[in-house]
Amino acid sequence: MRDDTSGKSPTLEQLGEFAVIDRLVRGRRLPGAVVVGPGDDAAVVSAGDGRTLVSTDMLVQDRHFRLDWSTPHEVGRKAIAANAADIAAMGGRATAFVVGFGAPAGTPVDQVGALVDGMWEEAGQIGAGIVGGDVVRCPQWVVSVAVLGDLDGRAPVLRSGAKAGSVVAVAGELGRSAAGFALWRSAMAGFDDLRRRHLVPQPPYGQGVAAAAAGAEAMIDISDGLIADLRHIADASGVGIDLSTAALAADYTALTEAAAAVDADAWTWVLGGGEDHALAACFAGPVPVGWRVIGKTVEGPARVVVDGHPWRGYAGWQSFDRPGD
Amino acid sequence: MRDDTSGKSPTLEQLGEFAVIDRLVRGRRLPGAVVVGPGDDAAVVSAGDGRTLVSTDMLVQDRHFRLDWSTPHEVGRKAIAANAADIAAMGGRATAFVVGFGAPAGTPVDQVGALVDGMWEEAGQIGAGIVGGDVVRCPQWVVSVAVLGDLDGRAPVLRSGAKAGSVVAVAGELGRSAAGFALWRSAMAGFDDLRRRHLVPQPPYGQGVAAAAAGAEAMIDISDGLIADLRHIADASGVGIDLSTAALAADYTALTEAAAAVDADAWTWVLGGGEDHALAACFAGPVPVGWRVIGKTVEGPARVVVDGHPWRGYAGWQSFDRPGD
Repeated sequence: MRDDTSGKSPTLEQLGEFAVIDRLVRGRRLPGAVVVGPGDDAAVVSAGDGRTLVSTDMLVQDRHFRLDWSTPHEVGRKAIAANAADIAAMGGRATAFVVGFGAPAGTPVDQVGALVDGMWEEAGQIGAGIVGGDVVRCPQWVVSVAVLGDLDGRAPVLRSGAKAGSVVAVAGELGRSAAGFALWRSAMAGFDDLRRRHLVPQPPYGQGVAAAAAGAEAMIDISDGLIADLRHIADASGVGIDLSTAALAADYTALTEAAAAVDADAWTWVLGGGEDHALAACFAGPVPVGWRVIGKTVEGPARVVVDGHPWRGYAGWQSFDRPGD
Repeated sequence: MRDDTSGKSPTLEQLGEFAVIDRLVRGRRLPGAVVVGPGDDAAVVSAGDGRTLVSTDMLVQDRHFRLDWSTPHEVGRKAIAANAADIAAMGGRATAFVVGFGAPAGTPVDQVGALVDGMWEEAGQIGAGIVGGDVVRCPQWVVSVAVLGDLDGRAPVLRSGAKAGSVVAVAGELGRSAAGFALWRSAMAGFDDLRRRHLVPQPPYGQGVAAAAAGAEAMIDISDGLIADLRHIADASGVGIDLSTAALAADYTALTEAAAAVDADAWTWVLGGGEDHALAACFAGPVPVGWRVIGKTVEGPARVVVDGHPWRGYAGWQSFDRPGD
């Protein structure tokens, strides 16, 4: 582990569940939406407009993160970011998170503290907090987060609302996480920014609400890959989506140096790379500031094409795939 | 596994994440509180009074359940019950669950279907549904559930509200899960009802709302053991709690035959056994139907005594204990 503190910290087993939880909870500043915070059987979170958004993502050690690549702090940030991006993709604002954490009994408590610090740092960027959790014994680290969010009176932006004749746009950057992953796996040094983007994604949090306010017809978070995720919009909406490589040239160009260094195709990263947690949405009218048009919707069949043609490369992640193996 | 279907079912890896999720979601009848169900980036659940209860519990294979004891259906019921009981203990009504599920790539999809069927069966008992989830690859089964609940305009019943001079009461039965656990671990046959109670708890769901309506001062779900959980009320409220073995005689008597069979002390099960998910609460006035008085609150110090004396036996579960090892 990059910031190993195991020599100085008691383990989970030595400190015990209740003392660990007390240490994780104490002194945190809870946001205003939290009516009752951690420490009871459940938390109470305000849901201003009488509805709550809810989603969940589970990260498993050596599947979704490696403790020889990521610090615990970075794992915490990634777990929160992946969940918060799902709320943004509905046009919502994340308000609160609950966390299930499994780890071996010998895990140093300081590592768990760093994980939770990372969660609070990421949650703090969007005015949210951690309101509850469960700490259990498990052979490897498992971080399971559920997120609540508020629509503030707006309609949720679903995957199913896209109509033919609209533009497809993205907020946030594409292919960075996949590039970073390839770099971590290679013998190549350098490209520290891309490496870091694999460990800690940078979702464009506020752009989900901005897209909803601008009348986005459909929206999704790019967690599995641009083509794979847009296919969900195509399927749910019954439209075709035609992406333009010319419009994606900036993403491609930003990655060509790294791609050359590891002998990869930057288009595979841009079109198939997951975990950037950028947002993609369809708009009938002008796109808001911070969004860039990358294609258009067309009459069905429901599929995603690139410059009018099927894409032959790696299209995206599924949980039981073995990419790169 | 007791109802092994591995010969007939495709595995998670063969079917793939999206097809698995489609199979789990299709045809389920969602409750009225669900505005947007599974299949988008997040679900939307109504929160009638502008607040949402939220809690989470994680179950790990061979720590919280064994697949040679439990069917996947029973694991699903247990995971939902443990979470729903936390909502009941706040005086709330569970409305929706999200589920993170980790399992090996070779897991038969039919087993996952049975797990989710069990979740729906248990959730259906309380009018709730499963509104989202995540299915990932993991070396062993991990089931992480988060639950949302509604207070229907009532104040939450916290652990911190107990005052000296009240009665302590429980709804639901005590010690059954611990007895069942001891029986599973023994060579002893029989006592099938107790064995089953270890695999599938029977929380007294409606009694949480009933207790809140009757003015309960404080309430908790008995997940770690009666004394261990009442200690949380004692600590949070700054009161002492004095339990009466005479008042607990019915729980003790129900378990003496099984205790004799495995050479155990039934009081250890009644006072220290977890996972029954009974409810314990403090009332200044009369207790509602379905509740029985088992003790009283007294002026501090914050502690739990039995017939006026400290209890010397096993007091309850912590996540990094090794009971029985």
